[in-house]
Amino acid sequence: MDSTRQFKFDRSFAQSAPEARSGVVPQRGKYDFAVAYPDPTSLPLKELMNSLGDGLSEEGEDLAIYPHPQGYPPLRELISNRLAQNRAMVATPESIMLGDGSGQPIHLILEALLDSGDVVLTENFTYSGTLNALRRFGAEIVGIQCDNSGFLPDALEHTIRNSIEQGRKPKLIYTIPTFQNPQGWTASTERRMALVSIAQKYGIPVIEDDCYVDLRYEGKPVTTLHSMDDSGLVMYVGSFSKIIAPGMRMGFLVAPEEVLARIRSIKSGGGVNQFAALAVHRFAESKLDSHVEHINGLLRFKRDAMLVALGENFGSAADWSEPEGGLYIWVRLKEEGADLEELRSKALMAEVGYQSGVIYSPDGTSGKNFARLCFGYNSPEEIHEGIARLAEVFEANGVLNL
Amino acid sequence: MDSTRQFKFDRSFAQSAPEARSGVVPQRGKYDFAVAYPDPTSLPLKELMNSLGDGLSEEGEDLAIYPHPQGYPPLRELISNRLAQNRAMVATPESIMLGDGSGQPIHLILEALLDSGDVVLTENFTYSGTLNALRRFGAEIVGIQCDNSGFLPDALEHTIRNSIEQGRKPKLIYTIPTFQNPQGWTASTERRMALVSIAQKYGIPVIEDDCYVDLRYEGKPVTTLHSMDDSGLVMYVGSFSKIIAPGMRMGFLVAPEEVLARIRSIKSGGGVNQFAALAVHRFAESKLDSHVEHINGLLRFKRDAMLVALGENFGSAADWSEPEGGLYIWVRLKEEGADLEELRSKALMAEVGYQSGVIYSPDGTSGKNFARLCFGYNSPEEIHEGIARLAEVFEANGVLNL
Repeated sequence: MDSTRQFKFDRSFAQSAPEARSGVVPQRGKYDFAVAYPDPTSLPLKELMNSLGDGLSEEGEDLAIYPHPQGYPPLRELISNRLAQNRAMVATPESIMLGDGSGQPIHLILEALLDSGDVVLTENFTYSGTLNALRRFGAEIVGIQCDNSGFLPDALEHTIRNSIEQGRKPKLIYTIPTFQNPQGWTASTERRMALVSIAQKYGIPVIEDDCYVDLRYEGKPVTTLHSMDDSGLVMYVGSFSKIIAPGMRMGFLVAPEEVLARIRSIKSGGGVNQFAALAVHRFAESKLDSHVEHINGLLRFKRDAMLVALGENFGSAADWSEPEGGLYIWVRLKEEGADLEELRSKALMAEVGYQSGVIYSPDGTSGKNFARLCFGYNSPEEIHEGIARLAEVFEANGVLNL
Repeated sequence: MDSTRQFKFDRSFAQSAPEARSGVVPQRGKYDFAVAYPDPTSLPLKELMNSLGDGLSEEGEDLAIYPHPQGYPPLRELISNRLAQNRAMVATPESIMLGDGSGQPIHLILEALLDSGDVVLTENFTYSGTLNALRRFGAEIVGIQCDNSGFLPDALEHTIRNSIEQGRKPKLIYTIPTFQNPQGWTASTERRMALVSIAQKYGIPVIEDDCYVDLRYEGKPVTTLHSMDDSGLVMYVGSFSKIIAPGMRMGFLVAPEEVLARIRSIKSGGGVNQFAALAVHRFAESKLDSHVEHINGLLRFKRDAMLVALGENFGSAADWSEPEGGLYIWVRLKEEGADLEELRSKALMAEVGYQSGVIYSPDGTSGKNFARLCFGYNSPEEIHEGIARLAEVFEANGVLNL
């Protein structure tokens, strides 16, 4: 192609179009603590195949039809029943919409609610995918101080009052109350009640992102914000990514009809993948509970392996979370000058992948001496080896002072 | 729930959020000519299962990983090869992004390019899904006069000049050059060359929507706009919905890197469903060509059945397209006062579903005496019965004057 004839799109983009994003896929380490993957060796592949076979023989011809805009109705019914049974939630199948994982449902809610400049409140460190989506819609993200029981109610209310005084009432509160990502704590019942009560008092909708809730290795389940709220302002997001597989791209949201009505006009691509939904539905109907029990045993073992390895290799130079569930441990190096974002490439040379704290930070700059280490992907032996290597890299670069 | 405590979202929605969309799923007729479904009895269900089995046994563990942001690389490579072989197109795997059908790719391009008020040019009647997406982004849609060979070049250029004179240069041209939906014609080589040349002359990007191209029952393939364009302004969209199944939600777009870079930040939900992509890839690798040959035989037979039934029942009171491929026939009642949108509910009482012309109309009002009748779903016998019933309904309501 003659380059002088090459059409340039630069003046064709919408003013509201987000910046370009690189297509380079991040390098993965052999010791891959960077992403919250489930255990790859225990994926229920054979069972998913059998479940799909059942689904296709029963209603395969319906693949000729476009899926329901909110996704396969029997799977929504199953989710409704599971939420009632496991989470004491009232969520009708009509109030549930399936999506590609939980990221798409969150994105859809943000697109329905946010104008550029809107204030959104989150935990002081929170899921990077949601932060990216919030930035994409121009939100001003304010991180609220938390301790190991959740949002500090006074800090939350103080920020809300301040924002209102400035004529900028927060539009939304986003929270991950269970096995908070990345910090690992679970919000207590009292803190959840306080959060719901503050949200109701000021009339601020809440997204409750509960996509790790089923991966509990100890302790007791805590009531959802959704079921504590009698006013309908808590929207709830969940996923099968962590308890079946991310490659199934199957998650869901629960929201009031007036929100769903907007989201139905926003969502592109039609109803969620029916081929995957058939398999997930039949599998979840009969085998999900025992599968979750099985993987929780494995994951608990991996979590413990990582905790031991951290103790052996990071000693007193760091502290870290000891989560009751989820897929990650949140590590803080006591050396406050440590820039763990910068050291990621050096760790990758030692075949270790992790994420540094800054990507979970609402301001995009704090948290440099923090790292999130995921334990789902590697074997316990690999976890030990990877953590030892990571400690070596940190030590060699003067940030792990044992 | 105490209704006085019910939180109202009405003041929470973004200014840019589109209007609510009803969640009511449209009623289907037994004689379902309303939607361009493929033939449900010839879906390759067993083959898809076997293909998925192969994919899972070879790389099932990778379902634990999040899919590539542009979708499963081997499937993009296969599409690249098929486009080269069947359509003489140069499209590298890196320039291809998989999406949920072709609707999502179109939506993503529109979101990247359109500001509210932008002028977009389409055929005088065109795909309703794209019209809805255009309206969602606030486009001013201008339908260009066409004949059975495509856009009239003079009309196209005249509209562009007029828009430019008003300081509103069109942002985009959207075209379905092959088995145009709903009109059924295929744009000639000369008209395609004229369109590309006009687009290049004025520097206006083009979306070429070619999602029916493989369903050709007679006549010769025509070169794509994409391969006629040496400047990179034609983006190309295709789909497996019509040649495998809509429920697989698998389509793709081909676009320059600078457009893909924006789309990567716009797309939510991560890479396309990997479970479905594994099955589509293995199936398409070995069996898609023979499957397409098989279904084209069936669909040709159905098309002919509908043409015969129209001749027998609509006689000289209407005229209709005789498409060389695709899944629909475009019918015009000579009674110009006919309001076929209004008569849809009456036809449904006789168990017949169809779409009226208005939903394909850029202005949303013209085309009331037109209907699109799809022949993919029902058997030839059902097609005969359904068309006879439709004629009865139209006659009883005074719009079919034989």
